[in-house]
Amino acid sequence: MGDEDEVRARVCLTAVGPPSDPWLGTMVAEHGAGAVWSALVSGGPPPGAPPFGGELPGNLLLRWQRWSARSRKADPDRLLDASAEAGVRFVAPGDPEWPGRLDELPGGRLCYGLWVRGRGDLRNLCLRAVSVVGARAATSYGLHVASELSYDLAGRSFTIVSGGALGIDGAAHRAANTVGATVVVLACGLDVDYPSAHSALFADVAGKGVLVSEWPVGRTPRGPDFLVRNRLIAALTPGTVVVEAGRRSGALNTAAHAVELHRALMAVPGPVTSAMSVGCHRLFREGKAVCVTRADEVVEQIVPLGEAEPEEPGPLLVPAALDQGTAEVLAAVTRKGLGPATVARKCGQDLPDAMRSLGLLAAAGLVERCEAGWRLPARSPRMPPV
Amino acid sequence: MGDEDEVRARVCLTAVGPPSDPWLGTMVAEHGAGAVWSALVSGGPPPGAPPFGGELPGNLLLRWQRWSARSRKADPDRLLDASAEAGVRFVAPGDPEWPGRLDELPGGRLCYGLWVRGRGDLRNLCLRAVSVVGARAATSYGLHVASELSYDLAGRSFTIVSGGALGIDGAAHRAANTVGATVVVLACGLDVDYPSAHSALFADVAGKGVLVSEWPVGRTPRGPDFLVRNRLIAALTPGTVVVEAGRRSGALNTAAHAVELHRALMAVPGPVTSAMSVGCHRLFREGKAVCVTRADEVVEQIVPLGEAEPEEPGPLLVPAALDQGTAEVLAAVTRKGLGPATVARKCGQDLPDAMRSLGLLAAAGLVERCEAGWRLPARSPRMPPV
Repeated sequence: MGDEDEVRARVCLTAVGPPSDPWLGTMVAEHGAGAVWSALVSGGPPPGAPPFGGELPGNLLLRWQRWSARSRKADPDRLLDASAEAGVRFVAPGDPEWPGRLDELPGGRLCYGLWVRGRGDLRNLCLRAVSVVGARAATSYGLHVASELSYDLAGRSFTIVSGGALGIDGAAHRAANTVGATVVVLACGLDVDYPSAHSALFADVAGKGVLVSEWPVGRTPRGPDFLVRNRLIAALTPGTVVVEAGRRSGALNTAAHAVELHRALMAVPGPVTSAMSVGCHRLFREGKAVCVTRADEVVEQIVPLGEAEPEEPGPLLVPAALDQGTAEVLAAVTRKGLGPATVARKCGQDLPDAMRSLGLLAAAGLVERCEAGWRLPARSPRMPPV
Repeated sequence: MGDEDEVRARVCLTAVGPPSDPWLGTMVAEHGAGAVWSALVSGGPPPGAPPFGGELPGNLLLRWQRWSARSRKADPDRLLDASAEAGVRFVAPGDPEWPGRLDELPGGRLCYGLWVRGRGDLRNLCLRAVSVVGARAATSYGLHVASELSYDLAGRSFTIVSGGALGIDGAAHRAANTVGATVVVLACGLDVDYPSAHSALFADVAGKGVLVSEWPVGRTPRGPDFLVRNRLIAALTPGTVVVEAGRRSGALNTAAHAVELHRALMAVPGPVTSAMSVGCHRLFREGKAVCVTRADEVVEQIVPLGEAEPEEPGPLLVPAALDQGTAEVLAAVTRKGLGPATVARKCGQDLPDAMRSLGLLAAAGLVERCEAGWRLPARSPRMPPV
């Protein structure tokens, strides 16, 4: 089965199979989307042995038959056409725009593929990104802090990823979009502006950043989908900041996903008299989140090599933690930009080694993506010494 | 040298030697206050070998001579008389009112003895106590939280220990004194009301609680003394709560002492927009303090056996963590009260074992001190089952 068929199978799966389904996800991870899709369309048994040996248990059989019935109505071409009309493209694993961090989702929480709308490149946007989430019923304090934090982080070239909801999410997207780019992760089709009060915001976001969803165009949001969506917000970035969260806020669900995926979890403290900070304070007390109060402290938690200080006069400081190989790759990159293979050849390294170094350097803001491949950021004052 | 001479030597040391002096403290810990005092008064050399071998270094010799000159003017009887006139008594190690936790101060930070004023019994007050400290330049938010927290803790029979300063300290003392008792730790003589705005508060505190100081009557406060005093606030209780602290607040010094003495350190979060919460948030970020937002969470950190719930109907719940020996001691204690020797005999244990169990039970609020020795608290609904 060709790559194209695999992608078309994933397109159909977003319309037929529930995202983050443990059984379906594990099957796709083990046998490929194409094999699972063929079995569904043909009405045959699921690929591989039944999960508990022997016959397929009745409840799983029923679910398989339901997906199978739906699959016969799914048409990838029609879905892709309808999406294209709404300005929506499909991004699957292996695609240049696929964000590598999603590969760390376990099989049981797999993402079959993402629908994407907007001028930004999802992969590039996520190279240097932070998730900022919080309560819908935010206080004026929470909205103020979410805006300040997101504005400052976006000003330092971090993409702000959030869920597009009213309250903290909206404040974070809006502030980030004024100075940088932002990624909105929705729990519905990208032609369905939910909440509708954010229609204008979403249109603004699409100008520089992107909106993404696991659900095809036309799909309206349903309750449990928001929890399934939250794992993507955590998975797309190296760290999540909870700005305000009540006792049972959905933001705590995103926080739990961040912990599960071994990503940095941060929270913003607030007055103990505020019900909207109870969730954040509990994360501190349980030792799950680090206390952050401003952008600097967030950057400290998520930048593996420490942050270069482009505003400082004098030569660009290369963090002492840079190993020899990474330093050589940095020296090979030019202002104009080079492909990764050229970089690898210039410093006499294997391509995978050079790629890994480029990824680390990008996360530290020392190199950035360009059309040719990778280049030194325009604002870095001069070539760093090696 | 008799016990009385040892106490009189300690009385004099509070007037002559700086408290928490590493060299003097270590000498007192090793040779006893009496031996050190005799050497000072006689103008002889310090007891024991010079700390670095050979001759006494010039700077130490100068200090020793200064103390020696002062010691010849010190008169313990006159000092005790002047104190008694001001309603101030002296409490030294070994005294029934001496709080055992001060024995955990290392030699270099020794407390020679405490001047005490007020109707409370310092040792009993400290059996179940929490320190609540914070900035003098507190915000209305901080004052509100300090009052609420101290009121709630005092209502659960915890003594609130603090430094008597304006701001958080004052709010904590005032709230605690309305429902329970409080201990004010001053950095000056107990006849010097500093700050003078707290004269009325200190008089109120003396009615049920106590004021304590390492300095004799008449001594006015000097800058460095506050830092020396802070170690006592941390040492007198099993846990310290920082309510508000600016970047360089003195409360952070008390916090550092609590960490050094392996006591629980807690802090209250606040708005990230408040300069008075910066110190608390830094304690979280550095992993030094646990985040607490209400009295329950403070109790959780400092009560070793977990807290009985006297308000609950039905039998008093004995925490599952109670071992057999401790449970037997609890069963032996009566409502009327018994001496520890009687309790030990009743349950067939050694006196030291029974004493240790009584201490644990007192810390959990399951028994309390009385004139006869120990009794069940009046408000406990009925005898707990064993």
